[in-house]
Amino acid sequence: MNASAGYDPERLAICADAIAGAARNFAALGWTPATSSNFSMRLDSGHVAITVSGRDKGQLGREDIMVVDMHDQPVGEHKRPSAETALHTQVYRRLPETGAVLHTHSRTQSVASRLFASDKRVRLQGWELQKAVSGYATHDSTLDIPVFANTQHMPELVDQVDAWLDSGQPLHGYLIDGHGLYTWGRSIDEARRHLEALEFLLGCELDLRRLRS
Amino acid sequence: MNASAGYDPERLAICADAIAGAARNFAALGWTPATSSNFSMRLDSGHVAITVSGRDKGQLGREDIMVVDMHDQPVGEHKRPSAETALHTQVYRRLPETGAVLHTHSRTQSVASRLFASDKRVRLQGWELQKAVSGYATHDSTLDIPVFANTQHMPELVDQVDAWLDSGQPLHGYLIDGHGLYTWGRSIDEARRHLEALEFLLGCELDLRRLRS
Amino acid sequence: MNASAGYDPERLAICADAIAGAARNFAALGWTPATSSNFSMRLDSGHVAITVSGRDKGQLGREDIMVVDMHDQPVGEHKRPSAETALHTQVYRRLPETGAVLHTHSRTQSVASRLFASDKRVRLQGWELQKAVSGYATHDSTLDIPVFANTQHMPELVDQVDAWLDSGQPLHGYLIDGHGLYTWGRSIDEARRHLEALEFLLGCELDLRRLRS
Amino acid sequence: MNASAGYDPERLAICADAIAGAARNFAALGWTPATSSNFSMRLDSGHVAITVSGRDKGQLGREDIMVVDMHDQPVGEHKRPSAETALHTQVYRRLPETGAVLHTHSRTQSVASRLFASDKRVRLQGWELQKAVSGYATHDSTLDIPVFANTQHMPELVDQVDAWLDSGQPLHGYLIDGHGLYTWGRSIDEARRHLEALEFLLGCELDLRRLRS
Repeated sequence: MNASAGYDPERLAICADAIAGAARNFAALGWTPATSSNFSMRLDSGHVAITVSGRDKGQLGREDIMVVDMHDQPVGEHKRPSAETALHTQVYRRLPETGAVLHTHSRTQSVASRLFASDKRVRLQGWELQKAVSGYATHDSTLDIPVFANTQHMPELVDQVDAWLDSGQPLHGYLIDGHGLYTWGRSIDEARRHLEALEFLLGCELDLRRLRS
Repeated sequence: MNASAGYDPERLAICADAIAGAARNFAALGWTPATSSNFSMRLDSGHVAITVSGRDKGQLGREDIMVVDMHDQPVGEHKRPSAETALHTQVYRRLPETGAVLHTHSRTQSVASRLFASDKRVRLQGWELQKAVSGYATHDSTLDIPVFANTQHMPELVDQVDAWLDSGQPLHGYLIDGHGLYTWGRSIDEARRHLEALEFLLGCELDLRRLRS
Repeated sequence: MNASAGYDPERLAICADAIAGAARNFAALGWTPATSSNFSMRLDSGHVAITVSGRDKGQLGREDIMVVDMHDQPVGEHKRPSAETALHTQVYRRLPETGAVLHTHSRTQSVASRLFASDKRVRLQGWELQKAVSGYATHDSTLDIPVFANTQHMPELVDQVDAWLDSGQPLHGYLIDGHGLYTWGRSIDEARRHLEALEFLLGCELDLRRLRS
Repeated sequence: MNASAGYDPERLAICADAIAGAARNFAALGWTPATSSNFSMRLDSGHVAITVSGRDKGQLGREDIMVVDMHDQPVGEHKRPSAETALHTQVYRRLPETGAVLHTHSRTQSVASRLFASDKRVRLQGWELQKAVSGYATHDSTLDIPVFANTQHMPELVDQVDAWLDSGQPLHGYLIDGHGLYTWGRSIDEARRHLEALEFLLGCELDLRRLRS
């Protein structure tokens, strides 16, 4: 434990390296254009490691990952956390099993969010890859990804996510209109699996729409 | 020969390395999202080397390849083989020249399977690359890729493949609806050539449909 | 200072390496086909480092970067600067904060320029990534990218850009019809962020048009 | 000079390495699926270095390049040259400045060839990148790429190319229906520039068609 700051610096180093590795992969795929996107991992019940605002996600080092508490406040550092930190800590608070949160900004995600904004959700049905999302055992299921209205005022986004969760509907990821995707998992590996699956399925839905129109 | 298990461990090591190398290539192309896809090679008349369920296909090591017999039972190990092992062993049993079976899950394959599901097949005609499939000497031929209905109950998939083979129609690969492609070859190099050719041709068919609509 | 030529050769070496590094990245993304595209950085108030005409942008070395003055004349060298040098120096003259100018030629840029040529601009609205362009703090803004008519006579292109700037409209980048994109920034990092954001947003607009037609 | 075979083996080694390097690049771009495509360079007035049939174009070594004479006969080796050797030697005979011929098989090329087969040509107009083809100084020009009917009988393809050349129309590359692209240049660098430009422009034309339909 870091006596002054209240978290384990070794755990932070491990998480920072894991985040940087995942981010390099996403950047190579074009999912983090123009310094967009942000990533986090839970350090312990009260602390989260999260990317510093505005860095090139293909070249993150340990100095680009900082610590915040569950109320979005920087801990033991003077860097500025991502503007969307509140969306990360919300997931850790509301879904306590969560170990990692990934927010990316691929072209597929941005376009799908615009296209399905009026439907307020993307409904996925009949895809084998729905099984890659924890809790789904068959393609013969329905996986809804909500699309929330975009705003620069974070509390309004937090409220939209809270309202969905309060309604009791399952939530494995969400889109923000004109923006990107949030998803998560118990581990960063599970979160990556969810991200890869949702990116793939959104792409398939766009392709089908192009082909069936 | 491995006295206790009945297969040659040196042959297993060679096959495991060949599978891992091919899988890295497919993963880099985006054909194995979210730990999907599985790959196998024949060890001998009674044994098959096959990927363990649920691993990241871009990072397979020897420990991620296991041995099953022709009735899908693990041999000399306690790992869980891929849920779709029965589809691999079926090909080795029914088409005895087969040396390798590749199942991938590209976006093109998933989308084509949905789009052509009601036709029950994708009919390829007039493409020079049909010649990349063994037995096809001209673009002026017809190459049918059946699309089978998806199910989580493997015996039903096995039955659909058996019915096609029993009908006497040639079979070089098949799609499963909402899922991906199975193809194979006498060697893993031939299986890769078939996979590259079918992925390419399915993509061409989707493009033509977009352009001619 | 280089007494004979009037610029700092150490600054030139640093800029040449930065340009070559950025160009390798753009080439790998397919944004510089067939030796197209050109890149520059400001050396000082009177000199610009710019790519020599016609080189493969994926393999630039220091010898592929030359110096011109603000009137497009080569300084201390006998190489031929890019045919479009006048478009670079214009930006440095008219927008004095500019430190780097990037001109790429991606398929998305070329196609968008043709498609929006009759509108004379691409209007971007509602995209979170508009915030990646300096001066834009919200998705709820309008970012216009003008599309200028193409000509092989550089002064006519310079005049079109001057007319836009003289009208007082903000300018962060522009397309030339059937050609590519020009964008810039105070540093090469900012210019790259602008390029990545505009390439991404043009691609999103094309996708939306395909999907909504 | 190799006394027994009549060509310079050092020149062959240089050409083989240049072909292998270019082929690796094209393979990485997905332009040579399933062992398709073939490449050649002129050794001297009577000899051509050309890829051996059926190899993986991403992994060519010197042993995968052989020598043929201008009548398609292997010289000093017993390997089988590409089935399409006659299309290479034809270009060297008819266009004596040619130093390299590249035949690739990208998805864009295959789809464009099918789509424009009934027009018998792809007409390129208004693209800045037309200037990347030697002899074109402005986007305000017309660059026709003929689409020839496919056949497995090489003399019929040779005849179609001869007929085009005999008509006096310029020829910088051609498509074969359902197949790929042939292009060439005085050097392999010029041939690559032509290939990159034509691949790009065919892709732009397909995109425009999708967007304007």
